[in-house]
Amino acid sequence: MPVKRRVTIALIAEEAGVSIPTVSKVINGRPEVAAETRRRVERLLHKHGYQRRVSQDEGRAGLVDLVFAEIESPWAMEIVRGAESAAHEAGASVVISVLHTHAGPGPDWMERLAGRRTDGVVIVASRLSTGVQAQLSARSLPFVVVDPEGEPAPGVASVGATNWNGGLAATRHLLELGHRRIGMISGPADMLCSQARIDGYRAALETAGVPSAPELIRRGTFLVDSGHDQGHALLSLEQPPTAIFAGSDLQAFGVFEAARQRGLRVPEDLSVVGFDDLPLSRSAWPPLTTVRQPLQEMAALATRTVLSMGRGEQPETRRVELATELVVRESTAPPRAS
Amino acid sequence: MPVKRRVTIALIAEEAGVSIPTVSKVINGRPEVAAETRRRVERLLHKHGYQRRVSQDEGRAGLVDLVFAEIESPWAMEIVRGAESAAHEAGASVVISVLHTHAGPGPDWMERLAGRRTDGVVIVASRLSTGVQAQLSARSLPFVVVDPEGEPAPGVASVGATNWNGGLAATRHLLELGHRRIGMISGPADMLCSQARIDGYRAALETAGVPSAPELIRRGTFLVDSGHDQGHALLSLEQPPTAIFAGSDLQAFGVFEAARQRGLRVPEDLSVVGFDDLPLSRSAWPPLTTVRQPLQEMAALATRTVLSMGRGEQPETRRVELATELVVRESTAPPRAS
Repeated sequence: MPVKRRVTIALIAEEAGVSIPTVSKVINGRPEVAAETRRRVERLLHKHGYQRRVSQDEGRAGLVDLVFAEIESPWAMEIVRGAESAAHEAGASVVISVLHTHAGPGPDWMERLAGRRTDGVVIVASRLSTGVQAQLSARSLPFVVVDPEGEPAPGVASVGATNWNGGLAATRHLLELGHRRIGMISGPADMLCSQARIDGYRAALETAGVPSAPELIRRGTFLVDSGHDQGHALLSLEQPPTAIFAGSDLQAFGVFEAARQRGLRVPEDLSVVGFDDLPLSRSAWPPLTTVRQPLQEMAALATRTVLSMGRGEQPETRRVELATELVVRESTAPPRAS
Repeated sequence: MPVKRRVTIALIAEEAGVSIPTVSKVINGRPEVAAETRRRVERLLHKHGYQRRVSQDEGRAGLVDLVFAEIESPWAMEIVRGAESAAHEAGASVVISVLHTHAGPGPDWMERLAGRRTDGVVIVASRLSTGVQAQLSARSLPFVVVDPEGEPAPGVASVGATNWNGGLAATRHLLELGHRRIGMISGPADMLCSQARIDGYRAALETAGVPSAPELIRRGTFLVDSGHDQGHALLSLEQPPTAIFAGSDLQAFGVFEAARQRGLRVPEDLSVVGFDDLPLSRSAWPPLTTVRQPLQEMAALATRTVLSMGRGEQPETRRVELATELVVRESTAPPRAS
């Protein structure tokens, strides 16, 4: 490793052509700096890898920021529970930030974040631009991405689940029951986890020598309505599937609804597999066969990682994927003899 | 109103027999004060109604602390969504504190709370001792209780729902369908909302001239397992009920499970009403008839109230109850002709 000269505020101020107090203000998230100046200083802080010296007096607040685009689904609750539990063990608390947009946070958010002396940021399934990452780095705010939507930038720490393996296991289960025409509903095309689940599904079909048909693969959001709509679309096909693998438990509940509206019984007339294993999937009717994704553990690991990064430690591995597991309940059965 | 002499730190220090910096440390949540001294100072701050002067420099952090005993249920998610949305509108963020006990927070929690300069505290369904309330008051931390478990102390601001009216409406709906033997499952005896729902149930029976039977009223937690167990208990009675009013949607899902295990169909053989109207109740099977409790609005109102108290405003009313509303779906029907 090359030995680097310690980057001081004075050096940044000189290079940016501003005063030392101005650089301090940017680092501390104070509002009274012009936007253009702020961006210039941030770029330089990031470029030089400035590390803020944290004295005991200005210690961190014992806060981890958990950032969501939306929190409509019970999925988010599992993430909150895992993060809160890990933070609690470390004597810290969790701040919930919901951006209410997929476009990334506004400038106010970044200022408040720095102003409240957060220990670190856990970003959930969000496409945070490299601009935002640079802003976080400039303030020496460590961050970890949970379930990244796109390919994380090199060097960015992230925690996910083995989505491909989950898609493989769900589809193999349906193949073993005797299904040959299997529909799949997944999430948005630009989310990595959606693609990985579809690829696992395709791999299972291929290794079993079962041809895949493009009309059997549908996309939507991961919410109930989307499962309902895409379920109807699949069941309206001239040759409808005898089983549907949904990309989330909520989508699977939507497929249940679509099946009932068409007078089909689950699992007698249609097998359904979900993904996530939310707590309510056990008491759904019928109890849902699903791929368990360890959401609480994922969030807990991300939180512990970001807190240790805040203490100056570096994670051993940048990218961690926790195992998914098929949980067989009562929504799957052999297809009807036709 | 009697004119009060402004309470200063010096006055408190003198009366407590400690130095001025010690009083400051207590107010600012610094750890290096002996427990006994801290308690003495807190009592005096509370007694004298000390109001911290908040200068612009040491302004609040734009944080609202949302305190839960537990966050196992999707119920909690609705509270988080409402609080976050109101905080977001005000340019603030929500900190989640889960106490993981019903015994109240430990001393560390209070120190961290004060240390992070929170704007205010929203306490959810928690029996926070008057000791904790005194500690919050001593630090001029405003707080509001959502859905109070016990009777709130006089002067404590709280937001609830019209639980009694909800119990009344649910039971009247079942009576109008023709049910006469109606079971009820409620929550813990020491939670006010449980008692109010039972009283509404009793009032509906009484005004309809239908005798109530003590064996038809059961208590449990508000979770699925409890609905399952108490549902079985009710359905095992020599004269089982033809309808069950559950104290929560989760309990109602547990009753669905118990009914299925006994080969009973909902609503043909058993009508079921829930309470809460969680988002998933719509896509349950059958879609659940339930009493809508405006959880998001309750949390949003509490959050806006605590933020305005933090700006020195006093709420117009200390106790607000938002309206509940019966939502009729497909889990209720007339009883079978016997």
